[in-house]
Amino acid sequence: MKIAVDAMGGDHAPAAVVRGAVRAAEEGLAEIILVGDASAIERELKALPATKKLEVVHTEQVITNEEPPALALRRKREASIALATRLVKEGRAQAVVSAGSTGAQMAAALLILGRSGNIQRPAIATLLPTLQGPKLLLDAGANVDCRPEHLYEFAHMGSLYASKILGVSEPRVGLVNIGTEAAKGNEVTLAAYQLLKEAEINFVGNVEARDLPRGVADVYVCDGFTGNALLKFGEGLAEAFFIKIQSEVNKSFTARLGAALLLPTLRRLKREVDYAEYGGAPLLGVQGISIICHGSSDERAIYNAIRVAVRCVQERLVESLGLLPRINSERKKVEDWQG
Amino acid sequence: MKIAVDAMGGDHAPAAVVRGAVRAAEEGLAEIILVGDASAIERELKALPATKKLEVVHTEQVITNEEPPALALRRKREASIALATRLVKEGRAQAVVSAGSTGAQMAAALLILGRSGNIQRPAIATLLPTLQGPKLLLDAGANVDCRPEHLYEFAHMGSLYASKILGVSEPRVGLVNIGTEAAKGNEVTLAAYQLLKEAEINFVGNVEARDLPRGVADVYVCDGFTGNALLKFGEGLAEAFFIKIQSEVNKSFTARLGAALLLPTLRRLKREVDYAEYGGAPLLGVQGISIICHGSSDERAIYNAIRVAVRCVQERLVESLGLLPRINSERKKVEDWQG
Repeated sequence: MKIAVDAMGGDHAPAAVVRGAVRAAEEGLAEIILVGDASAIERELKALPATKKLEVVHTEQVITNEEPPALALRRKREASIALATRLVKEGRAQAVVSAGSTGAQMAAALLILGRSGNIQRPAIATLLPTLQGPKLLLDAGANVDCRPEHLYEFAHMGSLYASKILGVSEPRVGLVNIGTEAAKGNEVTLAAYQLLKEAEINFVGNVEARDLPRGVADVYVCDGFTGNALLKFGEGLAEAFFIKIQSEVNKSFTARLGAALLLPTLRRLKREVDYAEYGGAPLLGVQGISIICHGSSDERAIYNAIRVAVRCVQERLVESLGLLPRINSERKKVEDWQG
Repeated sequence: MKIAVDAMGGDHAPAAVVRGAVRAAEEGLAEIILVGDASAIERELKALPATKKLEVVHTEQVITNEEPPALALRRKREASIALATRLVKEGRAQAVVSAGSTGAQMAAALLILGRSGNIQRPAIATLLPTLQGPKLLLDAGANVDCRPEHLYEFAHMGSLYASKILGVSEPRVGLVNIGTEAAKGNEVTLAAYQLLKEAEINFVGNVEARDLPRGVADVYVCDGFTGNALLKFGEGLAEAFFIKIQSEVNKSFTARLGAALLLPTLRRLKREVDYAEYGGAPLLGVQGISIICHGSSDERAIYNAIRVAVRCVQERLVESLGLLPRINSERKKVEDWQG
């Protein structure tokens, strides 16, 4: 199996990306194709004690976070993310992993790989740390404006991913909402609830945002605006919490001593809420495996993302997603319900 | 000044409510009218060492969280929240405070007090704890489906509240979004951004959910679905965090000792993220002061909510909100922009 890794994507590229890729290759997870500036990549490779040879596909073009994704992709046909995605399209790699511009990666996946089967809206599925272990949340930001049938799709894709890749049997799927009752929500969640209660998945109803950290479902479904806002807010709160503890602790000797003794616990906790621990987030619903990494991914995050990619390929995820039923008959119901 | 307090609202009513009200009265914040079951209220009052006499307005009807608000309000015309709100309408009290059904309180405010001046959509303004102290967030849940001009109204109401009640000069108003660039967002935030950048408030642009806990603005504006989800998610994360520390700590003696030494710090931190510390959330944009308390309000939360109510009355908040400019001219711009 070959995994194409965008060596130029992310805040710590290419160093962190190359290191994570080398580690994956050394452990025999997969063969790695590094896509990007060959001289920069070779410099990083030389600094590492590697026994396996990594293939390098050279390109000088990179798309940054500042560029409008679709436009940048048209202008830079040889951008690292475009080349890496094309390797998947051409069957020369089985998956692509990148920590670069999420917008560009999504645009590349949509334009080059195309949508899968009956899926109208591919979605980003991320793991959210909870008291019951990590749970899947989607959409994490691919679709900021959603209709009810899109949430219906997300629910099916998420359920499939949780069962095939995360190994959860009959995953409990919850609709993120502002109350648990069926009558709670905005126009979109109200209608999505009606669709989901008829769906052939283990739909457990609405889940309140408050209960997400308790792990009350295996798959949390929401639109990409809400999902992105919740995930980022969670990251921000965790950061703020550790900053606050730090500054409070410095105010008293007893607290400082206490914090020192508690340090291993706090570190473990911090690690548990760290995205790097969970690797990348798959873009579900495109004709190929495309794993999106956090922009600030370190070596460990890249390594874990490659692991996720390998598992998606092994489990033939794309083929399964392609077999999800059409939602047309269901969409009819939404119209009836709304009308 | 008289404040009408719904003695029957909340998980700990009437005991906690009566205690908070008595404390406010004893401190001379305001005269208190307790609305609810007179015998239950008198029982609580008798148990307290009070020097001041509190007025009691008797009613046996109460609206619970389980009832559909508007319907319940029509059926139970003598419900405690309805009576308390009517006292404000009739000028017999200057504000109403309740920890009961938020939906019923909003419906009572809208039906009995009515909208204020040019405001189309009254909104709930809540304080969010941040590293820079509490910041205002609205809408916290009154309007789950919003148009851009509603966010424009929220921005103006929030700015006015922050400056008059929280004492912030030229409050920085931020639009909660999934990126800081003007081109980021969903249909509603994209259009709202265009309106807000022309508004005569100190609009600082989009703020990412990740940056909210850092206190990057004084007023955070969002639709009620997003606002409610963020606030509840934050509460849930804080709860989960303390549960997690607890369970981790029990695994090792060193950690247990550390936690014991750190306990005052953790307690202070917990207190800082505790809604009870901040009292109630005003429903901005109705013809009167209506302060919404958390359902699980304790004595302190009720007392703090009464303080907020008093300050709103003293600062003539309703009169100021009534003078906010009409948004019609601005709405025109949205249409131009969307068309």
